Amino acid sequence: MKLESKLSEVGMNLKSSLIRELLKYASVPGSISFGGGVPDPNTFPRHELAEIAKEVIEKEYAYTLQYNTTEGDDELAKQMIKLLERVYGITGLDRSNLLFTTGSQQALDLLARVLLDRDSICFVEFPVYLGAASAFRMTFTKFETIPLLDDGMDVDYLERKLKELDQAGKLKHVKFIYTVPNFHNPAGVTMSLEKRKRLIEIAERYDIPILEDDPYGLLRFEGEHLPSLYKLAGPDRVILLNTFSKILTPGLRIGVIVGHADIVRKATLAKQAADLCSPSLNQRMAARFLERYDLLEYLKPGIELYRKKKDTMIKALEENFSDIKGAKWVNPQGGLFVWFTLPEGYDTMEMFDIAKEKKIYYIPGQAFTIDDSKSSSMRLSFCLPPEEKIIEGVKRLKEVVVEYGKKKGLI
Amino acid sequence: MKLESKLSEVGMNLKSSLIRELLKYASVPGSISFGGGVPDPNTFPRHELAEIAKEVIEKEYAYTLQYNTTEGDDELAKQMIKLLERVYGITGLDRSNLLFTTGSQQALDLLARVLLDRDSICFVEFPVYLGAASAFRMTFTKFETIPLLDDGMDVDYLERKLKELDQAGKLKHVKFIYTVPNFHNPAGVTMSLEKRKRLIEIAERYDIPILEDDPYGLLRFEGEHLPSLYKLAGPDRVILLNTFSKILTPGLRIGVIVGHADIVRKATLAKQAADLCSPSLNQRMAARFLERYDLLEYLKPGIELYRKKKDTMIKALEENFSDIKGAKWVNPQGGLFVWFTLPEGYDTMEMFDIAKEKKIYYIPGQAFTIDDSKSSSMRLSFCLPPEEKIIEGVKRLKEVVVEYGKKKGLI
Repeated sequence: MKLESKLSEVGMNLKSSLIRELLKYASVPGSISFGGGVPDPNTFPRHELAEIAKEVIEKEYAYTLQYNTTEGDDELAKQMIKLLERVYGITGLDRSNLLFTTGSQQALDLLARVLLDRDSICFVEFPVYLGAASAFRMTFTKFETIPLLDDGMDVDYLERKLKELDQAGKLKHVKFIYTVPNFHNPAGVTMSLEKRKRLIEIAERYDIPILEDDPYGLLRFEGEHLPSLYKLAGPDRVILLNTFSKILTPGLRIGVIVGHADIVRKATLAKQAADLCSPSLNQRMAARFLERYDLLEYLKPGIELYRKKKDTMIKALEENFSDIKGAKWVNPQGGLFVWFTLPEGYDTMEMFDIAKEKKIYYIPGQAFTIDDSKSSSMRLSFCLPPEEKIIEGVKRLKEVVVEYGKKKGLI
Repeated sequence: MKLESKLSEVGMNLKSSLIRELLKYASVPGSISFGGGVPDPNTFPRHELAEIAKEVIEKEYAYTLQYNTTEGDDELAKQMIKLLERVYGITGLDRSNLLFTTGSQQALDLLARVLLDRDSICFVEFPVYLGAASAFRMTFTKFETIPLLDDGMDVDYLERKLKELDQAGKLKHVKFIYTVPNFHNPAGVTMSLEKRKRLIEIAERYDIPILEDDPYGLLRFEGEHLPSLYKLAGPDRVILLNTFSKILTPGLRIGVIVGHADIVRKATLAKQAADLCSPSLNQRMAARFLERYDLLEYLKPGIELYRKKKDTMIKALEENFSDIKGAKWVNPQGGLFVWFTLPEGYDTMEMFDIAKEKKIYYIPGQAFTIDDSKSSSMRLSFCLPPEEKIIEGVKRLKEVVVEYGKKKGLI
């Protein structure tokens, strides 16, 4: 069988993600990796989850070991509705507004499937969250990218683009604006309240849905909590994606779509064909955890740990890179990532060869572009390495930058 | 926001499955349901799984609560390779031949995505497994249906169709032949060894991949185990789908694609975009269960239970329906379903209204057609109701058939 001749267009176009390929090297002994965005397993409530797992299998086996409904666990839905009210001040939700998914990656995929066609246009931020781009890309949609500034997306740019598309008669093809408003992955920036309001105003005017992805919202180190787009504009305008991956544990693979019942229903039907249901066990475990423990209290030590690590990384960047003119970094108010940009002329993908030699790993900015274009930026994740490794890693990174800079005649 | 104007073609086409709609009624008190194909939860090894869950969360939390690889658990892969050798006699497999999925529904969806285009043709059996049809349909592929006979698909029909397509220059659009060779859902039939060989010979001649879906293979009540198509023809011709849903528990949501490394890799890339990974916890639980317990021994009481229930159902059908000329049923050698066909003129969908009144539920054959056409057949599942309910249920079914038959002037 010649497989090539049997593949679909999707099948032919699928390529391994850059991140995956790069991170293969990160397991070499002596390596320091700022690559992966995975939480520190020591922040997971393992004892509590172990007890809960045993209990819900023993006592609720007829649910936890059986097929789930496609919509997911009703008990988790109750807890989630409470949590959304407590944390986001979102009210008026009922069961029909929630669909639990296999991580928020599946939420992105399901929404792409029910919203995007080949001739559709979706707006994403630049740099873009890679997982979203890979899910949306499977539909062969067209992308428009909105540059990210220090206070979130360039809404003026968005407005101009929408106006252009409107004048060209293409507005009907625009299906949604995708945004990660809090502690953006990879850019680290947070959308200001003013921009949130303007984004909503623009989206209302052109009647474009907003897809708000908020995996990190609860991981705030400093500054004030800002209202979610969903809270500000409601289900007629915004679909909110949330996940337990960064606030409880990624291993349970629980994401959730919060939105208008009509769109949730369509995503549910797509999920039915995509995997029938996600495991009941994992969802019931999360439900019981939320019932018994105060998630916000439980999160505090983890947030403190990440804040310290972030401060350590920012300090190390200041100490090492203040003499590189034009080097700059975003100091995030939360989340897991620092976005680090080198002066013009640097190509962080090309530079990666030197990084590999020095056993320090990052994700080149190129991984977060739609068109695979060169980038002088990189994503640095501070969540996994211990503080002394962060310090050592940034030192190595400096050596990498200097060596590459000299080779290229940039310094 | 007017949602309709934002939906993709997929989004617009998604409809709730007939089964879901029908089974909503089945929870009415006093109902007897032959509808759902879910296993009896009392067959689940809950004590063993509860212990294992606690242990793997406590001791292996850095794996079980963390993101999984897209490919899935290596330990489960080891156990699965052993199991496939022991049960199917399949040898020569390594890690690159296996992708774990969220149930085999996700396997169907991923393979559809990497193989099927809008102008593709896929062959399915008639009646068709509904889950496969719904996954394939999302790609807008065209279907060709091969009638099922008592000893499996009508391979002569398949051969004629392929010849026609070849002569019409359309052979290149045929992407695969999908089959459930053992204890077919819904038809209950098993493909004979002779037909397996002929199917492979035809598929080889026309160079068409075979998608072999075998969720029930280990649930054999009687008769000899027949070699799998994968065993007979190998990975260059056959992609094998398997699942733990019917042999361990559906709640873990573990399916597996077994095939040529190239196709497994493409499906893995599609899964990366679709949900990143399935939960590590569930896969490690299954791995430890397979390590510690003899799955085939563990399965014996469950198989015996299902065999008894099946015998009870067949006996009840004989007792109640021998006087309805032209009524016939497949006596399955394993699995979970009896396919029951009434004489011409019966429309089991229309008849369902009477069944609802008498609180007896089945799945009308129409649910298993590609084009939603009328059917005089129905699927009866014997796995969940206790034996006395099976006897009572078949009696009610007889009343339904008589009432409908009289109303329509059929008896």
